[in-house]
Amino acid sequence: MPAAPMNLSKLQEMIDISPFHRWLGIVARDITADGIDLLVPWREEIISNPAIQSAHGGILATLIDMGGLYAILSCGGSVIATADLHVDYHKAASPGSLIVKSRIVKIGRKTSTARTEILNTDLKLLADGRGRYLGDPG
Amino acid sequence: MPAAPMNLSKLQEMIDISPFHRWLGIVARDITADGIDLLVPWREEIISNPAIQSAHGGILATLIDMGGLYAILSCGGSVIATADLHVDYHKAASPGSLIVKSRIVKIGRKTSTARTEILNTDLKLLADGRGRYLGDPG
Amino acid sequence: MPAAPMNLSKLQEMIDISPFHRWLGIVARDITADGIDLLVPWREEIISNPAIQSAHGGILATLIDMGGLYAILSCGGSVIATADLHVDYHKAASPGSLIVKSRIVKIGRKTSTARTEILNTDLKLLADGRGRYLGDPG
Amino acid sequence: MPAAPMNLSKLQEMIDISPFHRWLGIVARDITADGIDLLVPWREEIISNPAIQSAHGGILATLIDMGGLYAILSCGGSVIATADLHVDYHKAASPGSLIVKSRIVKIGRKTSTARTEILNTDLKLLADGRGRYLGDPG
Repeated sequence: MPAAPMNLSKLQEMIDISPFHRWLGIVARDITADGIDLLVPWREEIISNPAIQSAHGGILATLIDMGGLYAILSCGGSVIATADLHVDYHKAASPGSLIVKSRIVKIGRKTSTARTEILNTDLKLLADGRGRYLGDPG
Repeated sequence: MPAAPMNLSKLQEMIDISPFHRWLGIVARDITADGIDLLVPWREEIISNPAIQSAHGGILATLIDMGGLYAILSCGGSVIATADLHVDYHKAASPGSLIVKSRIVKIGRKTSTARTEILNTDLKLLADGRGRYLGDPG
Repeated sequence: MPAAPMNLSKLQEMIDISPFHRWLGIVARDITADGIDLLVPWREEIISNPAIQSAHGGILATLIDMGGLYAILSCGGSVIATADLHVDYHKAASPGSLIVKSRIVKIGRKTSTARTEILNTDLKLLADGRGRYLGDPG
Repeated sequence: MPAAPMNLSKLQEMIDISPFHRWLGIVARDITADGIDLLVPWREEIISNPAIQSAHGGILATLIDMGGLYAILSCGGSVIATADLHVDYHKAASPGSLIVKSRIVKIGRKTSTARTEILNTDLKLLADGRGRYLGDPG
């Protein structure tokens, strides 16, 4: 069964099914040939270290996890769960919106992988990583 | 300079410096010879998929990141930031408290690593992973 | 179909199917309740840096990959391929036999994971890591 | 101290310091603005599964480890050791040369990361991954 074509409002609707995504206020910005772009506003509760006002690494991990998952769905892949996640941290995420760019690496029948970069509004790389997702070969 | 001996109330105090940890309500439960145990209560906002009421993978990643970091600090290691994080997901985290067990793998001068398991209250393994942390070789 | 009980000579036979395993001279030493132990002799060709005579990180990665895979097979899991691998390096592997201890983390229908430690003959931890393996849900 | 400009023969010379690299016959092919390209010939001893004649996952891990390391050196970064390695396997590596493309993700003072893709001669993606490398902040 071919996947229905995905558009931004459908993508936003799927993202918003998750209470944690709604709490984060994740906004779908673009669907590209091989992935998606998201924008995430700042909120005080995501701070890890108040001395440097940095976002928690777990928040960046969340965005790499979910960004890759929706990139695969938006490119017609199937996903039923995240199998595993790897995140590299490069620079503290200071207050400001986060730009999330998720791109397909490989869509497979049993598993798929996608790679995500998180940038600040100056386009500095804050973190990157990849997720592997279990498909539904059914 | 030898690290001051860590006790539970000091550990809780350090954890609570982070607004995101306070939002999650993370409770320090035990300091062992080689790590720490934490307990994390459920809250509705951490749900990923409301159909199965599972906690978001990014929340489990958060606990693996911060659990390993405080395990290293509680064992006398120095940490200034997380370098990278790997998480394996094994079972959906249904509503209920999460048990976090973080143990030192290696304390080094430049970097240290720690491994964390997340269990539900039936002691089923939900996720495990490890973080590498940059030290302050000073 | 329940897996046939594995014994050391059967395990050695399976390991030796691989030309690269034979080249490395990997020896099956023990089958435990939740994994396997291997011993790998030194050979000059595996050296990475001749100045410190250390084994190549790719050799340690090889042992973490294959150790986890045979641990899962020896515990009755099915594996058709490695999905992904993570390795942490802790200490340069100087000339001498390598001790490989691979233990099951989770045997699943679609994927399984196993964790492996590599020690030198002084039982110092040289590297550890984990592999995720695709099963044959058949 | 600025790094001396790297050229292909100097890169090949550095790669060949390692006995394991010489055994694999790794050939430096190109130095780009942000990384390096390598070519690795086939040899029978690297086979994992003789039934499908696939290269061992540990060989691909070796190339991701060393490719990223020399990419960082060729771009002026310092590396004293690999900290950790992650590899995603996408397709069995059948007999034939392996093309290795390693690109810098971030050069840092304490650690640097690089990402590597391994392709077959039909330019199909066989594996990709990243390494984090300890620098010499000296």
